[in-house]
Amino acid sequence: MFIAFEGIDACGKSTQIQLFAEYIKKRGFKYTTVREPGGTKLGEKIREILINEDMNSRSELLLFLASRAQLVEEVIKPALKRGEIVIADRFADSSVAYQGGARGLGVEIVQRLNDFATDNVYPNLIFFIDIPVEIAIQRLEKNQKDRIEKEGAKFFEIVRETYLKLAKNNKNFVIIDGNDDINEIHRRIVEHFELRTKSLNH
Amino acid sequence: MFIAFEGIDACGKSTQIQLFAEYIKKRGFKYTTVREPGGTKLGEKIREILINEDMNSRSELLLFLASRAQLVEEVIKPALKRGEIVIADRFADSSVAYQGGARGLGVEIVQRLNDFATDNVYPNLIFFIDIPVEIAIQRLEKNQKDRIEKEGAKFFEIVRETYLKLAKNNKNFVIIDGNDDINEIHRRIVEHFELRTKSLNH
Ligand SMILES: Nc1ncnc2c1ncn2[C@@H]1O[C@H](COP(=O)(O)OP(=O)(O)OP(=O)(O)O)[C@@H](O)[C@H]1O
Ligand SMILES: Nc1ncnc2c1ncn2[C@@H]1O[C@H](COP(=O)(O)OP(=O)(O)OP(=O)(O)O)[C@@H](O)[C@H]1O
Ligand SMILES: [Mg+2]
Ligand SMILES: [Mg+2]
Repeated sequence: MFIAFEGIDACGKSTQIQLFAEYIKKRGFKYTTVREPGGTKLGEKIREILINEDMNSRSELLLFLASRAQLVEEVIKPALKRGEIVIADRFADSSVAYQGGARGLGVEIVQRLNDFATDNVYPNLIFFIDIPVEIAIQRLEKNQKDRIEKEGAKFFEIVRETYLKLAKNNKNFVIIDGNDDINEIHRRIVEHFELRTKSLNH
Repeated sequence: MFIAFEGIDACGKSTQIQLFAEYIKKRGFKYTTVREPGGTKLGEKIREILINEDMNSRSELLLFLASRAQLVEEVIKPALKRGEIVIADRFADSSVAYQGGARGLGVEIVQRLNDFATDNVYPNLIFFIDIPVEIAIQRLEKNQKDRIEKEGAKFFEIVRETYLKLAKNNKNFVIIDGNDDINEIHRRIVEHFELRTKSLNH
């Protein structure tokens, strides 16, 4: 089982992954968490470049994809082969929403590029934690105001809308209302997970 | 005008580009030469990674493409806009022949990925310097034997065959017999260039 957490900045992905991983562990499942770019030696080198160098948006996407391809080969495929649950903090759909949608490269072309980079290894369960952009901005203002100033609310609106379109067209997407209490969100994620696990075993 | 030199290792691309650039200069044309990966700050960083890190072949291709996209935006498009002749020591077709053909990723998928990376900016004249693999191996044995041992003659055969197929389907390709005297090859390249320049001006 391959589970991805997606959503706009500050929607609560990392918070929920931590709670979910603890739950999974208590349930007795083996799991591996991954986070892009990084997770491999190649990915760490690519991450450095993404942080430090100026580049056009096509190169930016291609670097994310190069890191993703290595993560799939080196970490995700082997973990799935060992029967572990893979939990990803962002995966292919982040590229579709951010670079394809908000940066304007195009949703379909980014999907085709993802097909190549991931070798068609995709999550079979995607938790899209959905919050309004204003809430994200409030949460970000508490921490790192520069990020909002850099992109603006309009940018995050397009990211969110693109995610919502993806969710509509992909039965593996589960939309989770992220504008709620942390523990209540966790409870709903677990509920969906158990439902999905049951249906896989029957 | 955008001119690329292509061919298997040691076919004589760099030798001919040097002679051709001297000729172009004498003819009074402004020109820019490019070589991948590199030619931009981003490309140099990517080149370091390609040399030093182990990776799967999809990541390798995606890194070449990221470097290519930046080269197109930062160097090739501006040079063409200034009216200069761009001379490339390898470009998109190298990825098709090496990664698409010899590494087995598939010719068509690499062509589609190139379309994205280059923003459809392609050479309008490609000199494919063709030599038999045995000749390439003889030349390489004189310099760096490790490269042949690494890939083997079979690998270079597929690269060459892929180039020949590309040349058959693309009217911008000119096949040059590279198993000839250096100055004779140069003379034929110049002849083709002048012919093409004339037909562009009429
Ligand atoms: N349900 C929630 N209600 C209120 N605040 C929350 C909620 N979930 C997370 N937060 C807070 O919002 C901030 C962002 O949360 P978190 O880091 O989990 O988001 P994220 O989606 O991982 O963000 P990023 O995309 O930047 O990695 C943190 O300060 C966190 O404590
Ligand atoms: N026509 C020729 N006849 C014989 N030797 C040649 C000819 N052209 C080039 N060489 C020699 O072959 C070797 C490779 O030439 P060159 O470096 O120009 O090839 P290249 O295609 O640029 O190779 P690479 O793909 O490794 O960059 C050099 O030692 C060069 O002097
Ligand atoms: Mg996070
Ligand atoms: Mg050379």
